[in-house]
Amino acid sequence: MLQSKLLIPTLRDAPSEADVVSHQLMLRAGLIRPLAAGIYTYLPLGWRVLRKVSSIIREEMDRIGAQEMLMPAMQPAELWQQSGRYSLYGPELVRLYDRHNREFALGPTHEEVITSLIRDEVNSYRKLPMILYQIQTKFRDERRPRYGLLRGREFMMKDAYSFDADWESLDDTYRNVYYAYTRIFDRCGLTYRVVEADAGTIGGEGETHEFMALADIGEDTVAVCSHCSYSANLETAYTRHGASPAEARTVPKPEKIHTPGVRTIDQLTASLDIEAGHILKTLIYMADGRPVAVIVRGDHEVNETKLKNALRANHIELANEEIVRQHTGAPIGFAGPVGLSLPLWIDQEAAIIESGVAGANEPNYHLRYVVPGRDFPLEHIGDYRNVTEGDSCPHCEGTFKFYRGIEVGHVFKLGTKYSAALGAGFLNAAGRENPVIMGCYGIGVSRILSAVIEQNHDDGGILWPMAIAPFHVHLIPVSVQDPVQRGLAEKLYYRLQAEGMEVLMDDREERPGVKFKDSDLIGIPIRIVVGKQAGEGLVEIKERGQAAAEVIGYEDVVTHVLGRMKS
Amino acid sequence: MLQSKLLIPTLRDAPSEADVVSHQLMLRAGLIRPLAAGIYTYLPLGWRVLRKVSSIIREEMDRIGAQEMLMPAMQPAELWQQSGRYSLYGPELVRLYDRHNREFALGPTHEEVITSLIRDEVNSYRKLPMILYQIQTKFRDERRPRYGLLRGREFMMKDAYSFDADWESLDDTYRNVYYAYTRIFDRCGLTYRVVEADAGTIGGEGETHEFMALADIGEDTVAVCSHCSYSANLETAYTRHGASPAEARTVPKPEKIHTPGVRTIDQLTASLDIEAGHILKTLIYMADGRPVAVIVRGDHEVNETKLKNALRANHIELANEEIVRQHTGAPIGFAGPVGLSLPLWIDQEAAIIESGVAGANEPNYHLRYVVPGRDFPLEHIGDYRNVTEGDSCPHCEGTFKFYRGIEVGHVFKLGTKYSAALGAGFLNAAGRENPVIMGCYGIGVSRILSAVIEQNHDDGGILWPMAIAPFHVHLIPVSVQDPVQRGLAEKLYYRLQAEGMEVLMDDREERPGVKFKDSDLIGIPIRIVVGKQAGEGLVEIKERGQAAAEVIGYEDVVTHVLGRMKS
Repeated sequence: MLQSKLLIPTLRDAPSEADVVSHQLMLRAGLIRPLAAGIYTYLPLGWRVLRKVSSIIREEMDRIGAQEMLMPAMQPAELWQQSGRYSLYGPELVRLYDRHNREFALGPTHEEVITSLIRDEVNSYRKLPMILYQIQTKFRDERRPRYGLLRGREFMMKDAYSFDADWESLDDTYRNVYYAYTRIFDRCGLTYRVVEADAGTIGGEGETHEFMALADIGEDTVAVCSHCSYSANLETAYTRHGASPAEARTVPKPEKIHTPGVRTIDQLTASLDIEAGHILKTLIYMADGRPVAVIVRGDHEVNETKLKNALRANHIELANEEIVRQHTGAPIGFAGPVGLSLPLWIDQEAAIIESGVAGANEPNYHLRYVVPGRDFPLEHIGDYRNVTEGDSCPHCEGTFKFYRGIEVGHVFKLGTKYSAALGAGFLNAAGRENPVIMGCYGIGVSRILSAVIEQNHDDGGILWPMAIAPFHVHLIPVSVQDPVQRGLAEKLYYRLQAEGMEVLMDDREERPGVKFKDSDLIGIPIRIVVGKQAGEGLVEIKERGQAAAEVIGYEDVVTHVLGRMKS
Repeated sequence: MLQSKLLIPTLRDAPSEADVVSHQLMLRAGLIRPLAAGIYTYLPLGWRVLRKVSSIIREEMDRIGAQEMLMPAMQPAELWQQSGRYSLYGPELVRLYDRHNREFALGPTHEEVITSLIRDEVNSYRKLPMILYQIQTKFRDERRPRYGLLRGREFMMKDAYSFDADWESLDDTYRNVYYAYTRIFDRCGLTYRVVEADAGTIGGEGETHEFMALADIGEDTVAVCSHCSYSANLETAYTRHGASPAEARTVPKPEKIHTPGVRTIDQLTASLDIEAGHILKTLIYMADGRPVAVIVRGDHEVNETKLKNALRANHIELANEEIVRQHTGAPIGFAGPVGLSLPLWIDQEAAIIESGVAGANEPNYHLRYVVPGRDFPLEHIGDYRNVTEGDSCPHCEGTFKFYRGIEVGHVFKLGTKYSAALGAGFLNAAGRENPVIMGCYGIGVSRILSAVIEQNHDDGGILWPMAIAPFHVHLIPVSVQDPVQRGLAEKLYYRLQAEGMEVLMDDREERPGVKFKDSDLIGIPIRIVVGKQAGEGLVEIKERGQAAAEVIGYEDVVTHVLGRMKS
């Protein structure tokens, strides 16, 4: 296409609202424009990339026999009430009323719709297994939309749903989708890790993995074993359980110490000259409105996902000052397990502290010589903490290293959560009715653009991987006024296109500096410059990441480009 | 693909909610399923057709240099307030509030979004002309969703917007889109008429045409000249103005006649033994809340579009009984122009009635010998009526014939309506700021499916045109248990696919009758049956519309199919 007519509004500087590189470059390169917070228009260049990503997804999903379809965005609220998610989803679910005052949700995901469809239309094991998918605009009213397409309120997703007759069959289906996903992300040129994950709001009984594109701005932390293949989202990563309790040693009775104003772990370690690992950090949480106490080692962080799952709660949050005072008799900072009349949830590493320091449930006092099991009951012991870098892998002798990741894909074994709730059964070969076994699988299509740019850019702009680049070749006549340059460029323009290549020709009357800067910014993989040597039939060719160009004869251009496209 | 695994839930009978053939067949052939009134899921077969229609649209839009993009569905209410459409659109606009209580509309169309984008991003004539388009799910909360995809609340549209520096350039752009549309509808296999139309809510200053697929269930009436190329939507069709007033003749003064209970034109013609053409039918309308009287001949119907445009009103409706009584002193049925103290809007054909009958503005009385201009002032004469079949073409000696049409496309010259309202200007070659001249262009993508099926079906089901058929070939082994039949069918299945054909193989263990009935219903253009003669290497081939099949050797199948695909 001709750049003079294409809507590519490049910007010299990034708008101030963009604080990560991918967002800045997407705005600067004219890929997207905001319409409202977390809501973007895809301009022609961004849309071309999105369409290429979608094509790759379609090819790989079709390859495993998945069937494409399209479900509505507007979903009757009743469906969500049947599954129980209408209240669970909270303010992230976009809700609206139609003219008859009937309530609808704008789909952030489609488990309810597809399950009710399958309930009505598929009744026999003969039709199973079946995978259905769609590529669609989704809606989620994020509390803090940010990072451009990374966390938007209207975004593009590929969601797939599988239906199997039994769990063994689901294992196969899951594996097929899993490997289709690896091919999709490989083809998009992403560096990623597949990690064990938590099922979150979607729920489910079985396995779940996330595909994490590694990037510093990633909102997730990924723990990766230095040795074996174990990697997991920090939410769910677990470590080998530490040493068993040291052999019993006589520890004095708990002793109150005056700690005026000492409310944090740091203050406590400094004022008492102890290690954080000897502190029994006690936090009061509200779990679905009921208070509980959680005890972890002072150098550990509570893992709210694990805690929530252990509590079987829908929602947990730290208790406010008022509730803490009410239950501990002290302001925040002085809670401890001794004498506390709340359910105690003790992390397994805290439970084996030989002699610890804890809050005294009294303003400005702590206790030392606190022995778990002796001075407070070990009611609910479990793994309620985040692993830390250096912790031991649970499967081998390796230790954890942490990375930041952008979740670009997610696969779940849902089991019968939705089919049971919505009554989606089928007759098995023996003629007996069973609930269908489901899986669900998502890819953040628009999010892939952000992840790819985070991983593929330099100071000048984007470096698109060939497979999803908006064009293959950027053809730049240095001076379009020069008839020789223009003539040769046009000849190449048509010739390359005749070979099936997608060519953007910069036919603008701009200074060379502007053209080259824009070209670096847009990041088309191969650049061909038609300049002063055009009279001799020579042009410059260069890949976006390369420093130096190569001068070649114009007859060799097609061969060169084909060679570089394949490599 | 293998039919045993594909989700094609065919139905023997049409669900009772479907009252037109295309809706019935779409449900029966497993193309769509309803989720709520006017909201449908596209099942795999329906989605395949929709994707083919979309591809044709993309090819033809790209061919005229249009650039594809994607704008958000969620649009800030402020934008719609700026254009003035937020209140005008009424309850058809789906509205919602986000978690911060900001108001949004779900886009039924995108003039506001694109105009504000162009305002911000395009500032020079050098970028013009420009055409941008998208294929997208739209939302319109129809009062009476019906006819399946014909009038839905969530539907797929291709909307395009053009930006030109002057009206002459818009003429070219408009013509380019117009002809792209004819190619699109031709390729989709539609029988249609391009008609002059009314701009409706979108507004605009210039030309506008509708592309009407002819079908008895069409919601629009199209007047087509028997002789020349003039055709127009009934909303906007006009006719040659009738004869000038007959030469002055002495007509007696108006005379009151007792007409107890005579309130309709039919009753009046019967009781007075006169022709409807001699009656001055008088209707009271409310135009943006103000009452007006409209006078048309008794055998004519008021054209509310023409009337609304003439009144420059946003909204008109017939006045209710109370308002009629208040202004005429009589119940509905006795209004007349004589002595009426309301603005009078007189259709040009009514204005030349020599001596007419009209209501007397008194219960149970009419007047005869009413002479327009003598007995009531000819305040606003104009064309306020629907043309009728047989009326004269305004351009030639032909007369009108009426058809019913489904609006599948619409092209508008918008002019500066939106660019002026939203401040979208550009610098022309002389460096002066001008508002950009816009056009907008829509295609009802999902609606095309309904229109095609209305035009292409028989008692057995759908007859898809090859270009948009979900598959090219339906391959049916009569008995999949028979290894010879199955073997030959599979061989053909792979061979045809290797030639690039899309093949659906009915590998189900169903009775032949069921398979053939489903095949007719689904309507794939070419059917190949592998039956008893498989052992001799013979198969039956037949096009969906043909009565008799041809027996051919299996080596000839590829050639045959290719031949039929091209024809």
